Parts: sequence; C-alpha cells; structure tokens
Amino acid sequence: MEYPSKLVENAVNEVSRLPGIGKKTALRLVLHLLKENENLTFALTESLNDLRSGIRYCKECQNISDTETCQICSSHRRDHSIICVVEDTRDVLAIENTAQYQGLYHVLGGVISPIEGVGPSELNIEQLLKRVKDADSEVKEIIFALSPTMEGDTTAFYLTKKLSEFNLKISTIARGIPIGGELEYADEITLGRSILSRTVYQKD
Amino acid sequence: MEYPSKLVENAVNEVSRLPGIGKKTALRLVLHLLKENENLTFALTESLNDLRSGIRYCKECQNISDTETCQICSSHRRDHSIICVVEDTRDVLAIENTAQYQGLYHVLGGVISPIEGVGPSELNIEQLLKRVKDADSEVKEIIFALSPTMEGDTTAFYLTKKLSEFNLKISTIARGIPIGGELEYADEITLGRSILSRTVYQKD
Repeated sequence: MEYPSKLVENAVNEVSRLPGIGKKTALRLVLHLLKENENLTFALTESLNDLRSGIRYCKECQNISDTETCQICSSHRRDHSIICVVEDTRDVLAIENTAQYQGLYHVLGGVISPIEGVGPSELNIEQLLKRVKDADSEVKEIIFALSPTMEGDTTAFYLTKKLSEFNLKISTIARGIPIGGELEYADEITLGRSILSRTVYQKD
Repeated sequence: MEYPSKLVENAVNEVSRLPGIGKKTALRLVLHLLKENENLTFALTESLNDLRSGIRYCKECQNISDTETCQICSSHRRDHSIICVVEDTRDVLAIENTAQYQGLYHVLGGVISPIEGVGPSELNIEQLLKRVKDADSEVKEIIFALSPTMEGDTTAFYLTKKLSEFNLKISTIARGIPIGGELEYADEITLGRSILSRTVYQKD
C-alpha cells in the first residue's frame, strides 16, 4: 500500500511491529491519533518512554516493581514459605485476581523454547535457585504455574531437576476441566489427564 | 486490576485509550515492549511524535501529505474534472488500490453526525465549495464515496444542496450486491436497492 506521507508510513511500520497488530489496524490507530488532540499522542509516547527508561524489577521475584523489593515480597502478610513460579507479570496479576494464593511469586520471564532460541540462561532461573538457597530452608514449597504446553512442561521438568538438591515440596497447578466447562467439549488430552489426576472425595 | 508499577499503569491507561484496544490488550502490548530491546519503544514513540508534530494536509484535497499540494492533486496525469468526496485517508487508499479511478479526491474528515456532535463546520466542506468555485467550471463531476449509513446519506444530501448552485454532475458510488456475494445472504435493503438501481444491458 502506498501511504500519502512518509511520516504516516514510518508510524504505521513501527506500530505494526507490535504483536497482533497488522498494517491495517496500525493505520487505523495512527489516523485516530491524528484526528484527536495532539496531547493524546504526546501523553501516550511520554508514558511509554518513561516506562521503558524507568522500569525496575524486584530483586527477589524479578516481577516489575517501582521499588527495589516489590510489595508482595516485602509484605509480612504473605506466606514466605511458598513460591509460585510463573512465566510473566500477567500471570501474577491473574493469580492475584483469584485471591486464592497468599504465597510469593517468581517471574521467569518466559519458558524454555529451543525453537525461539530461549535457553535456561535467558530466564530468571539462577535467581530462583539463589533465592531458595539464601532463604536457608525457609522455603517449603514451589508451585509451577506454567503454560500447559510442551515448553511449559520442559521448563517445569528442568526446574524440578535443578531444585532436587533442596528439601522442597514441588507441585504444579491442577490441569482439568474448567469450572463451567462441558465434558463433551473438552479435548481428549485434558479429559484423560483429569481422570488420571482425579480428586479423592472419600477414602475407603 | 492492580498493576505492579505506576509506570505500567500509566502506560496501560494511555494505550487502552486507542480505539479497539482494551486494558488486557494494552497490558500485553506494554509487556511486549518491556521484553524487547528498548530501541523498539523509542523508535515507536519517536515516529508517533514526529507524525503528530510534522503532519501536513494538502491545501487542495485536505488529504495527508508531505508537501503543500499532494501528489495526486499536483499530477498532470489525473483527471482534474472529477472530484471524489470521501470521509478519510483510508478511503483514498482503498479507492487508489482499485486502480479504477483517475480523478481527484476531497477528504471531508468525517461525516455529519449530530449524535457525535459533528456538524458541517467541523468538516472540510467550505474548502470543497471554494475548490469548485475557484476551478472556474473546470470541475464537471462530483462523486460521493461515503459510508452507506444514515450519516453518510445525510452528508451527501447536504453537499448536494450546497453544490446545486454550480453546474455539476453529482453521483454516488453504486450500492448493490458485492462481487462474489450470494443473493440469499444479502440483506433486504441492499437487495431491494440493487433491483431499483439495476444496470441496463440492452435497451428495447
């Protein structure tokens, strides 16, 4: 497509590099910015620049944080004996929204994926091991809350091996039929796994 | 949702003000920028700032342009006797892509919409009238290529009245069954209109 202006073309190219945004959507967004007051654009770009230059990560859990140690890690009301290992910040937000978990987190920053060239050294794995070590057996349990994909499983397997030297309970979040889900629409693998990992109501 | 950082919260709020982007998508985009090299963010924000401060509009057709008069308006290979009136730049791009039109354009910048508070004075209507007047009867035809909505029809009606003092042919793009469309799936209004505005193959 031939754009009416170099400035528009540059902006469309940059915006369409964002995930899930193609050239058509990018053009729509760019023309929207042109139609609105210019302060909207400048507020947007300023907030992104500030974010990129000012962002910090918690030295404990590696989650995004405004302070050296994040609110969760520095809270005395959280259970410091459990660490939930997640891929990224969005997972922390999702679990926090459930209000079912009172422990700490550890943000890996991704999962091991040879196809995408992500090895263990690209992730915050060393920090996790150091954290467990430094806590001097204060940490009793590690919960994996990773994606139910081959990459997620590989990462969980790798971490389990690395953590085996410590005296820890290691678990993963339950896989099964979602609440409100219908059995007939569940895929065979999920349904099969949910039978294998059935929950016991009453022991004989 | 409680974000882990004020910087993230600000960025999410700004990004989610864009059309079609909610808080969840905004967070995904913002976290993507954090994961990538910071140059990506700075290139993005710079291109948007440059766009917003450097953008110019063609003094003839009011389309976005890098020059005082846009490429189309200044071309001697275009037919200067026809002006196609459109809502915005995207419509110009869409019509240019068909390679079926050799005339000029006029970009209104929207359509008359009392609900959204857009009256004739917010649109580039005066510029169109001035253009037709100044061309001193060089312009022979005006084609409306506006949305097939009530707002589009209202705008076409308003413009027709305003243009009636000039000796012009005024037309609108054909409404009908899209090429490749199936009759049975067409809505009644489109199908009804397509019968009323049927194209004559052979006269008796």
